Amino acid sequence: MRVVKGHGTENDFVILPDLDASIDLTPSLVRALCDRHSGIGADGVLRVVRSENDREAKEMALEAPFFMDYRNADGSVAEMCGNGVRVFMRYLQGAGLVDGSAAVATRGGIRRVVANVDGAYTVDMGHPLVLADRPVVTAAPLDPVPGIAVAMPNPHVVVFVAPDELDVLDLSRPPRVDPPEPAGQNVEFVVVTGPREITMRVHERGVGETRSCGTGICAAAVAVATGEGVGADGVPWQVSVPGGTCVVEWDEQSGVRLTGPAVLVAEIELDEAWLRAAEQ
Amino acid sequence: MRVVKGHGTENDFVILPDLDASIDLTPSLVRALCDRHSGIGADGVLRVVRSENDREAKEMALEAPFFMDYRNADGSVAEMCGNGVRVFMRYLQGAGLVDGSAAVATRGGIRRVVANVDGAYTVDMGHPLVLADRPVVTAAPLDPVPGIAVAMPNPHVVVFVAPDELDVLDLSRPPRVDPPEPAGQNVEFVVVTGPREITMRVHERGVGETRSCGTGICAAAVAVATGEGVGADGVPWQVSVPGGTCVVEWDEQSGVRLTGPAVLVAEIELDEAWLRAAEQ
Repeated sequence: MRVVKGHGTENDFVILPDLDASIDLTPSLVRALCDRHSGIGADGVLRVVRSENDREAKEMALEAPFFMDYRNADGSVAEMCGNGVRVFMRYLQGAGLVDGSAAVATRGGIRRVVANVDGAYTVDMGHPLVLADRPVVTAAPLDPVPGIAVAMPNPHVVVFVAPDELDVLDLSRPPRVDPPEPAGQNVEFVVVTGPREITMRVHERGVGETRSCGTGICAAAVAVATGEGVGADGVPWQVSVPGGTCVVEWDEQSGVRLTGPAVLVAEIELDEAWLRAAEQ
Repeated sequence: MRVVKGHGTENDFVILPDLDASIDLTPSLVRALCDRHSGIGADGVLRVVRSENDREAKEMALEAPFFMDYRNADGSVAEMCGNGVRVFMRYLQGAGLVDGSAAVATRGGIRRVVANVDGAYTVDMGHPLVLADRPVVTAAPLDPVPGIAVAMPNPHVVVFVAPDELDVLDLSRPPRVDPPEPAGQNVEFVVVTGPREITMRVHERGVGETRSCGTGICAAAVAVATGEGVGADGVPWQVSVPGGTCVVEWDEQSGVRLTGPAVLVAEIELDEAWLRAAEQ
């Protein structure tokens, strides 16, 4: 079995080419691949399949030639990932399966991805919803601070902090959010560092602090744009996370677009004995 | 550039075959390879070189055909690694470079490694020194407890804890050792779970809690054997760490022998653009 390792702003993935949908990608195989010590190591697996060959993709009846079957490192299925879909597109392009743009089927719907001339990729992330709620976020050593709830559509709470507070935040445990979103939420701690420039850290529900979160980057830009009263004016925001930098544009008509890097690290031939053990 | 990923009780390595010593393995390339999000991810790199081709190996003048040039994930050079040398031997054997046993040159001297019929590997770890010091170790939430200092020859402090204490230990920060060893130390927290059976967790200096530590496994068995008064009687100890299980034998004549698994996970062809960026 051959796979590819890649990352987008250090949100990293095992890409599993399976165009004819012949591989039985079990949760235990996903966990084995994503294990950072006994496997390859990644935040998730991106299975690459032709939509016409995959039962689930056919049931969704999305008009897109390839389906991004995205699994979390714990083996569970996931809907969409703004960093993952760029890496998915980078793979498709490198393998000669698409040209400079493609529609990708995901469990969160179709995502259109475009390769830019500078090597970055832009993906349509849909329309955000800034909610009326102002949940209060508590994270040591800060005093509780009101946040802005944003649905991307997955739930986010964005909190503004001071520059010297961002570095000392203890995100080794989940921030407390009151009231919490029903299914939990990602929490973004943001500092506006300049005109249209944001630096942030993110705590993802069920994962912990991560190097990057695509929807979180979008939610942060939307919250800042809303807070500053400019809203969906289409002017780019540069958003830096620990794993790199992305650009977010938000306009009324097309919604949010996320632009960022996608890096392929290596082609990987799994050891046969390792694979037999992993599949058990 | 082709590398291999492998692990021994989840202490994991990028194996870099460089038999003719033609690769310039810079600290930045080591760091890039070992980065768990933007690279391959590993605790360290094992460069495989023929001793006769490598200047450093020739200067050491060790009578061993292959030199294990071991680097830590931060790019620094390291002496020896009890888990790494088994994985190194597994690679040599799989590549048809040695048969069932070999002498491996390391910066810590020659290590003799033998492949067992059950697929495990046994390595001579040298003679331990149980020191007279009884440094006091403090790790939340436990009360301070006296430890046994063991040189393998790298410095270890072994602490006995109760079974219910082992799981709740907070090793997210270094245990306090008073007085500390001059260059710092690894700390092993051990529970004797049965006759000749030990379960332990380990905090490695400069790294944090790890899934396994070869010399730490040996130090734990030596400390328990000393504490129980049986000493170097040659009877095997089974030592479990979070990443798996090893066997330790200690006798007066041959010193300590460590037996454990060595797993190859995959062969990896690094992306050329990634490699160019990593080498800068």
